[in-house]
Amino acid sequence: MPSLPTCDTLLLKLETGVLHITLNRPDSRNAMSLAMVAELRAVLAAARDDRSLRALVLRGAGGHFCAGGDIKDMASARSAGAAAYRELNRAFGSLLEEAQCVPQVLIAVLEGAVLGGGFGLACVSDIAIAGADAKFGLPETSLGVIPAQIAPFVVKRIGLTQTRRLALTAARFNGAEAERLGLVHFSEADEHAIERRLDETLEQIRQCAPGANAATKALLLASDSEPLDALLDQAAEQFAAAVTGDEGSEGTLAFVQKRAPNWAQ
Amino acid sequence: MPSLPTCDTLLLKLETGVLHITLNRPDSRNAMSLAMVAELRAVLAAARDDRSLRALVLRGAGGHFCAGGDIKDMASARSAGAAAYRELNRAFGSLLEEAQCVPQVLIAVLEGAVLGGGFGLACVSDIAIAGADAKFGLPETSLGVIPAQIAPFVVKRIGLTQTRRLALTAARFNGAEAERLGLVHFSEADEHAIERRLDETLEQIRQCAPGANAATKALLLASDSEPLDALLDQAAEQFAAAVTGDEGSEGTLAFVQKRAPNWAQ
Amino acid sequence: MPSLPTCDTLLLKLETGVLHITLNRPDSRNAMSLAMVAELRAVLAAARDDRSLRALVLRGAGGHFCAGGDIKDMASARSAGAAAYRELNRAFGSLLEEAQCVPQVLIAVLEGAVLGGGFGLACVSDIAIAGADAKFGLPETSLGVIPAQIAPFVVKRIGLTQTRRLALTAARFNGAEAERLGLVHFSEADEHAIERRLDETLEQIRQCAPGANAATKALLLASDSEPLDALLDQAAEQFAAAVTGDEGSEGTLAFVQKRAPNWAQ
Repeated sequence: MPSLPTCDTLLLKLETGVLHITLNRPDSRNAMSLAMVAELRAVLAAARDDRSLRALVLRGAGGHFCAGGDIKDMASARSAGAAAYRELNRAFGSLLEEAQCVPQVLIAVLEGAVLGGGFGLACVSDIAIAGADAKFGLPETSLGVIPAQIAPFVVKRIGLTQTRRLALTAARFNGAEAERLGLVHFSEADEHAIERRLDETLEQIRQCAPGANAATKALLLASDSEPLDALLDQAAEQFAAAVTGDEGSEGTLAFVQKRAPNWAQ
Repeated sequence: MPSLPTCDTLLLKLETGVLHITLNRPDSRNAMSLAMVAELRAVLAAARDDRSLRALVLRGAGGHFCAGGDIKDMASARSAGAAAYRELNRAFGSLLEEAQCVPQVLIAVLEGAVLGGGFGLACVSDIAIAGADAKFGLPETSLGVIPAQIAPFVVKRIGLTQTRRLALTAARFNGAEAERLGLVHFSEADEHAIERRLDETLEQIRQCAPGANAATKALLLASDSEPLDALLDQAAEQFAAAVTGDEGSEGTLAFVQKRAPNWAQ
Repeated sequence: MPSLPTCDTLLLKLETGVLHITLNRPDSRNAMSLAMVAELRAVLAAARDDRSLRALVLRGAGGHFCAGGDIKDMASARSAGAAAYRELNRAFGSLLEEAQCVPQVLIAVLEGAVLGGGFGLACVSDIAIAGADAKFGLPETSLGVIPAQIAPFVVKRIGLTQTRRLALTAARFNGAEAERLGLVHFSEADEHAIERRLDETLEQIRQCAPGANAATKALLLASDSEPLDALLDQAAEQFAAAVTGDEGSEGTLAFVQKRAPNWAQ
């Protein structure tokens, strides 16, 4: 069990193999403050080397996921000058990079406002479950600014074609449309259906070996950037290590013995 | 207001902040002639540094968008030899590159034939609105030639998986299917619905700051090719510049004062 | 007509311009054995330089496409050590690379189990036709191993967003969902509809010039990795060669004479 940092802006709850992280600034629709960015990064750092953790579930308190950047932090940065804006913005990008690569399966539950920075966080999840009436959008250019740290992750998530329309019109859209665009995997009619889908997803993840899942996720993320031949050579090494290692031995034995492997119990 | 070139093959109409460009060779279903390529490139060059222009709307006269390359130019090139074909072909690719990167929002209205080179132009638009009965296709290999300059832009638009089928079968399909494939953003039942969608889209674009939109578009286009860390560093600089600049100051002030920013009036 | 190798695990049938390749180990749902990998690679090598072959049709005998890797080969590799696993795994990746690049149009007919390695093969086809009730999935991590050679091809096929969910949950899904995800081009209600779609597709391919199709496929595959300017320069050379070559001359002449070109007869 990881030693988790104490947090002011997040609620943390650890269940068997699952860490539930709830953005908890409901008065501001969980606007992403500097403190929240720092606490999320600390939680991810504490979780990342713990193979007993199988999944992280990220959601928002009070009916909203996250409405974007925090106006108060923006105001403080204004008095501190352009460099403060640069730091604040880049720190959020580092959070997105770290969340993208966390070895556990990252599940985002997206209700209410999923705007700006909240939209960015949705884009680095492994599995995204949205309420059909959630409100997605990239409002930045309608405020005279740019979706700076977010844009590259949106392009990676749904491709250039859809991203260019969304970013250049600040259009709002709901969870059903988010599913059609491939931004989320599931759009659910109500809270009850969201919870059922989350339970089903966690149950599927429990069937998968934690080390194999972590290695697979790293391989998928490398697929975009590394040359294919080198990637396949390296993947063959990893396959040999996996199949001869503890998980591979247990998994193939359990298959032959027609029983669940030890990680699925 | 930009000083626009005189054109034989295009109709140009300037409205408040919007340049309407109409391919105007209806007798040949707006086949892409060498002259038309040159005139389109000149218009884009004249428009590109004008921040008072917010959007370009590209469409075809006479019920068709563009049926592809011009047969007469092909015939002349034949007598001039292979080098002439190479030049003619490459010039069209340069047009596609320049249209892809034009800082304004490029909207394509796609009716009737959207074939070959016309298909290529559709693929570099930021927002594409098709008639449900438009006719899309890549007929090149059925004529014994190849979609040379077009293919890379189609792959970037709809991905390798769909492109390989379309290019290797010369299959025709309509606007509804184009929407399903993610080639266009909207498929509309009739001309009236197309105009309504165009008006709505232009109204959304007017809510977005022109400089912020131009910077965002450049960032999206860079996302495919540049390494992520460098891109995010640079984006943070641009964010700081945007938020402390004229548009950012006006946008955040307008937000606090609950009024429309000056660019949306 | 290519000189085809004698095969134990494959059925080969040559029709006019089409090579039908049937995975033929129905007792094990056409599990991908080392022998099958070697024979498939030999068949592709024999076919690749034969321009009289227009398409390859890959399917499975006995109602299944391919259920994944062969358990017996896995057992032998275990006694031979980790290096044997590495070789076995990497050889399958080489098959995928070679199938991806074969100059003919590769059509996959996907019925029953399309799992693991079978899923990988589906991902390198130019055109995929699935039964609506086919069973797709990446079960690797639920067995304690990783989809090592397969994962990069799945990402290329359907993007990172969908792949990460499928690979990290081992979720099963049917042909209709495979069409929605863009993994296959067609999902058909029954065997009869599958054959009709296959016939229609082969008829479309016969309309396309074989050399032009091969050059176009190579261009599409290069679009992901090569810089755009260099790619367009090279494509313009290829266009000039195509239009002044035999196929281009015949194709444009047939077009003017309103008759089918010689390759479509």
